[in-house]
Amino acid sequence: MEVPLARLADFLAARGHQVVVEEESAAQVAARRYAVTPAASIGAHADLAIVVGGDGTMLAIARRLAAIDVPLIGINQGRLGFLTDIPLARMETTLEAMLAGRYLEERRTLLDATVTAHDGEPQRALALNDVVINRGSLGTMIECGVDIDGRATFTMRADGMIVATPTGSTAYALSAGGPILSPTVPAWALVPVAPHALTHRPIVVDDRSTIRVTVIRGRDAAAHCDGQVRFPLAEGESVTVKRAAFTARFLHPEGHDYFAMLREKLHWSETPERLRSRPPHDA
Amino acid sequence: MEVPLARLADFLAARGHQVVVEEESAAQVAARRYAVTPAASIGAHADLAIVVGGDGTMLAIARRLAAIDVPLIGINQGRLGFLTDIPLARMETTLEAMLAGRYLEERRTLLDATVTAHDGEPQRALALNDVVINRGSLGTMIECGVDIDGRATFTMRADGMIVATPTGSTAYALSAGGPILSPTVPAWALVPVAPHALTHRPIVVDDRSTIRVTVIRGRDAAAHCDGQVRFPLAEGESVTVKRAAFTARFLHPEGHDYFAMLREKLHWSETPERLRSRPPHDA
Amino acid sequence: MEVPLARLADFLAARGHQVVVEEESAAQVAARRYAVTPAASIGAHADLAIVVGGDGTMLAIARRLAAIDVPLIGINQGRLGFLTDIPLARMETTLEAMLAGRYLEERRTLLDATVTAHDGEPQRALALNDVVINRGSLGTMIECGVDIDGRATFTMRADGMIVATPTGSTAYALSAGGPILSPTVPAWALVPVAPHALTHRPIVVDDRSTIRVTVIRGRDAAAHCDGQVRFPLAEGESVTVKRAAFTARFLHPEGHDYFAMLREKLHWSETPERLRSRPPHDA
Amino acid sequence: MEVPLARLADFLAARGHQVVVEEESAAQVAARRYAVTPAASIGAHADLAIVVGGDGTMLAIARRLAAIDVPLIGINQGRLGFLTDIPLARMETTLEAMLAGRYLEERRTLLDATVTAHDGEPQRALALNDVVINRGSLGTMIECGVDIDGRATFTMRADGMIVATPTGSTAYALSAGGPILSPTVPAWALVPVAPHALTHRPIVVDDRSTIRVTVIRGRDAAAHCDGQVRFPLAEGESVTVKRAAFTARFLHPEGHDYFAMLREKLHWSETPERLRSRPPHDA
Repeated sequence: MEVPLARLADFLAARGHQVVVEEESAAQVAARRYAVTPAASIGAHADLAIVVGGDGTMLAIARRLAAIDVPLIGINQGRLGFLTDIPLARMETTLEAMLAGRYLEERRTLLDATVTAHDGEPQRALALNDVVINRGSLGTMIECGVDIDGRATFTMRADGMIVATPTGSTAYALSAGGPILSPTVPAWALVPVAPHALTHRPIVVDDRSTIRVTVIRGRDAAAHCDGQVRFPLAEGESVTVKRAAFTARFLHPEGHDYFAMLREKLHWSETPERLRSRPPHDA
Repeated sequence: MEVPLARLADFLAARGHQVVVEEESAAQVAARRYAVTPAASIGAHADLAIVVGGDGTMLAIARRLAAIDVPLIGINQGRLGFLTDIPLARMETTLEAMLAGRYLEERRTLLDATVTAHDGEPQRALALNDVVINRGSLGTMIECGVDIDGRATFTMRADGMIVATPTGSTAYALSAGGPILSPTVPAWALVPVAPHALTHRPIVVDDRSTIRVTVIRGRDAAAHCDGQVRFPLAEGESVTVKRAAFTARFLHPEGHDYFAMLREKLHWSETPERLRSRPPHDA
Repeated sequence: MEVPLARLADFLAARGHQVVVEEESAAQVAARRYAVTPAASIGAHADLAIVVGGDGTMLAIARRLAAIDVPLIGINQGRLGFLTDIPLARMETTLEAMLAGRYLEERRTLLDATVTAHDGEPQRALALNDVVINRGSLGTMIECGVDIDGRATFTMRADGMIVATPTGSTAYALSAGGPILSPTVPAWALVPVAPHALTHRPIVVDDRSTIRVTVIRGRDAAAHCDGQVRFPLAEGESVTVKRAAFTARFLHPEGHDYFAMLREKLHWSETPERLRSRPPHDA
Repeated sequence: MEVPLARLADFLAARGHQVVVEEESAAQVAARRYAVTPAASIGAHADLAIVVGGDGTMLAIARRLAAIDVPLIGINQGRLGFLTDIPLARMETTLEAMLAGRYLEERRTLLDATVTAHDGEPQRALALNDVVINRGSLGTMIECGVDIDGRATFTMRADGMIVATPTGSTAYALSAGGPILSPTVPAWALVPVAPHALTHRPIVVDDRSTIRVTVIRGRDAAAHCDGQVRFPLAEGESVTVKRAAFTARFLHPEGHDYFAMLREKLHWSETPERLRSRPPHDA
């Protein structure tokens, strides 16, 4: 069976597009001798980036290319992802239409996280899904303080604290009991993971807010961006999160429907016909 | 297409079993002239009761026959139920084996509910799934007090309060956020529905406990047994729930596996293989 | 002890303000002979409306006065409410400052609900907290279909479906497991109550969305606005909800802090000092 | 201010009891010259063990002394614990009564966990609260397979999987959304932590069950007993949990009421009087 990436490159080249392959993936298309470039410099060469893989791959690429404003298309080999929404089996026909201009463009917000450590320079990273401050391998809860716009808002003991974008609201935040934020809602979800106090609930705040999470107590806490970039956090250290200056641009096939995708992935919506045949209280 | 009940009656008669049809269902097998009897007196005539329908039908029959200790088999025409676990398509082959002695027997506890109204006699009803004390059509919460073994345990404002058996733990109680109780756990789940206070949680108590739920405030409260039998409750009136003196006997095909059924109905257990191909934090 | 409303009227009159008392409350201040007017026409007479009571009273008044854009102040006699945030004990000193111009103004969105019945005129009502479509006294779930912006989004079987404003996100929606929406987030929370399918989750959508909830099945369904206005809904009938053309104006004392109020009411935020003295995993 | 442990030792000695101090705590009572012994051999010397500290201290001691069947009393210096239920301020009067025979005895089940690693001996540990299999510091979910009584029951991707005793059901399992199990319910709660699939729910199984949790995928998984004893787990390694051969014996003052303690710690039960003054839907 042909390697999907090679199939894609050939498809694009055959249509007269200039193909540049990201360095680490180049081995997959070795025989073809397409131009190869590091991910960091793809933006300078490309009008469009097409990612073949799962949502994890897309997250990594989207963070890297966000500053350059290059549009992204996601092809998924297995089960469709939230971000990689074109099945491999229909790759060519779908791209044919999209390259001919039949697509929907959507912009997604990113989080800009700054980690302030006791010594050394602050470190920054972007996140398309979420910034998570969580416990490590000791298995004991951490204590966090959360400031919103410079005001101490609450403290909590928990496994962790998630700051999620609408994009990330269907990822880890959903597992932790957070709500689904429609992509057009300009907000972040603050979702505690296994909070000790029974009164904590997910909170949705304006995405113009600046959120600072400080580790008050916890010997092995860390911050994670999209579950992929990790910063250890000592007691007293904090992460400040705000809206990034740029957004990720995703292109979808025409007819793309966010809620249809949710419905498919979450298995909502038993049809009423089916339900009608069942008695009350039957589960 | 042949009526399932008629098909079943003919199948049993052909094997030499004496068939008695419950009165209200008799029209479905009219041409066959089988003996007909009211549900209430089926127990006196039968060594075995076979129910064709959904879980709702089985609940109603199980409550009626519980005192008589006749074993029950459930045939389901649509999606398999929790209680009606034999698909219609395999009815004959499955029953063949079971009538030949290849079955598993299982006993399920029932709740015995006594409603104490301000005037008139206390009224009693059984429940195989649950006794629910809930608000009515006004749409406002009710306040309940819950006593366990004669001791005032807590009060709550909520849409309702569910006392569920292990059997009922996969029905309404599950929708309200209750845990699944394995059928062999001798316990009830007390599950609040939309409680006003954020600290309420489902509680699992010993099934030797006597639980009394009193309506403290609520203009249109009622108690429901299995969602099928309803008692209006005025303020100050209460329902006392304890373990019934008898149990429901269910027969299952050999190989019946409670957790396999849960797995099928709840869509647990993505296979690890599938999962392996996905990146971290991808949802 | 003096009646709070009379105390308030006297306080205002003594400062030279013209006092108009809402008709139904007039009996409380009977001796004073202040002008009396129906709630409906208060707007025409008033530069400011001061409500003495709980959040329920404020909800009713806010819906009535919303179209007139008169600012609202809430005095609470018991535990502070989310909307009635000035304690009776500090009424005079707080109002003194506010009437001198030391206040914060906040606008809250309202829902505009239109009920479409099979016969007769569509009926409309406003809601400051929520529009709830729910089951009645039969105790059996209803089935709803939810359309967002004209697109069929999902169907569900549940006790009910809540469409909540940020204001209402701390009321019934919170009991049903919904997230807290900060008042500045331009969104609605769609929160199912005890959904039958295990995959349903609260969803937060843009407040420019038009949401239609149709009763697919349910013999005693109804729609409620703020739990105070009720419309029976037959099968096939629906409620359409969108953002109202006007907003509610609330005045708060200077220093008012939304999260401080949440903290107080939800009992968040055990102090770290207390936590520090406790061992891991101790609850 | 006098050291509580010294105060306790003096109190006991003054009443003619022979006092033995656990080795690591001996420094606190140094001047008194009481006999000192390692925790491991306290059982051989004692008719009764009194723990001064929090629930974490009690967990550690209870695991150590469980095999010896010595009864335990817990004195708490700060907020009362679930296990250390006697406030320091009332230590002497309460102990006076208990030593005179006025106490309630309660037995709590323990989990016996065996960790099977690829190489080396199986390792065993007890747990009074819970055995938790969870992710480590990488911040990515692990995949687990759960067998109940030798039968593959389900797999899941999650932050972790908790097997909790009734005692542990009010600890970490409660934070993760598990139910409260009354101490007399002979069951374990299996509670997923932040499960990826939306259909997972807490399950309550018979405490005669043997539960095996296998790490299918996860680079930094570990098992924790009571959050205090840690075993790293490689992929393919597993923990088998069953009921321990012995139980922990706790002595409580007369009048001890489990639900009263829950009520106090969880802040249940607003009084109906308070509630009565509030309007519907007010939160």
